Amino acid sequence: MDTATATQVITSKALLNHWQGHRNLTRKVIAAFSEKDFFEFSIAGMRTPAQLVTEILTLGAPALKSIIDRSEEPFSESRFNLETKAEYLEKWDEGTAAINANWEELSDQDFHETFNLFGQYNFPVIENIWYFIDNEIHHRGQMFVYLRALDITPPFFWER
Amino acid sequence: MDTATATQVITSKALLNHWQGHRNLTRKVIAAFSEKDFFEFSIAGMRTPAQLVTEILTLGAPALKSIIDRSEEPFSESRFNLETKAEYLEKWDEGTAAINANWEELSDQDFHETFNLFGQYNFPVIENIWYFIDNEIHHRGQMFVYLRALDITPPFFWER
Repeated sequence: MDTATATQVITSKALLNHWQGHRNLTRKVIAAFSEKDFFEFSIAGMRTPAQLVTEILTLGAPALKSIIDRSEEPFSESRFNLETKAEYLEKWDEGTAAINANWEELSDQDFHETFNLFGQYNFPVIENIWYFIDNEIHHRGQMFVYLRALDITPPFFWER
Repeated sequence: MDTATATQVITSKALLNHWQGHRNLTRKVIAAFSEKDFFEFSIAGMRTPAQLVTEILTLGAPALKSIIDRSEEPFSESRFNLETKAEYLEKWDEGTAAINANWEELSDQDFHETFNLFGQYNFPVIENIWYFIDNEIHHRGQMFVYLRALDITPPFFWER
């Protein structure tokens, strides 16, 4: 038995699984919108599902890659250039694979190094990754309201 | 330098601070509603802010206390019996102090023990605590939409 691993409150692998579990749920939420509503629906002038998901996509694979490469280059959401829900889902799945692959490059020590993500968010890596997950949960919660307002039953929150 | 601590991806203390940071933001969201809207507002038949916050309160101090005591007794939300927003905020602050105090009782090993919370949620302690935090972010995201629909600017998401 590896004692160092046994006494970790949250291992690197558990954190990855946690994030990917959330990403799996978010994928179901994206899929639940009609094509039209995904790009047009909003409540009270808030961002559309497509706009929210674009942000979540950015703070996913591209952000993790920037951390791995220690590249502080700004990221423009417009680089995705996605025009259909199917394209969003495809980009989502590419992100899932890329996150799994790049995660292997992160040592436990790396999480505590300070890095200026996108030349703008200067925090320990663990804080940035935590932000990615929390931000996704936050905006997905908003999309749950959108789905309810559209009379669509969202997936269960605990379904990962 | 304590090597064991240095290689923790997320220490117990960091997890507590993370949770309390989120709880601090949720408190601001509660405070942002008018008395009437806190108890009555809803979109698409969803729960009111008061009902959502009652759940968040339950999956806070009482849930953590149950874990500490290894008490599998079911918890009834009606036990809170709160009737004004001020009472909710008071209960919130009591919860903040109780969580800080009870957290001290959790060893790093405890997070990996399986426990049947409220006689119903049989998971490792870390999974239950993660659920408390995620569930709070999720429902608070929904309350952000409520605030926007009420033409109230919510606090910044990163304000903790």
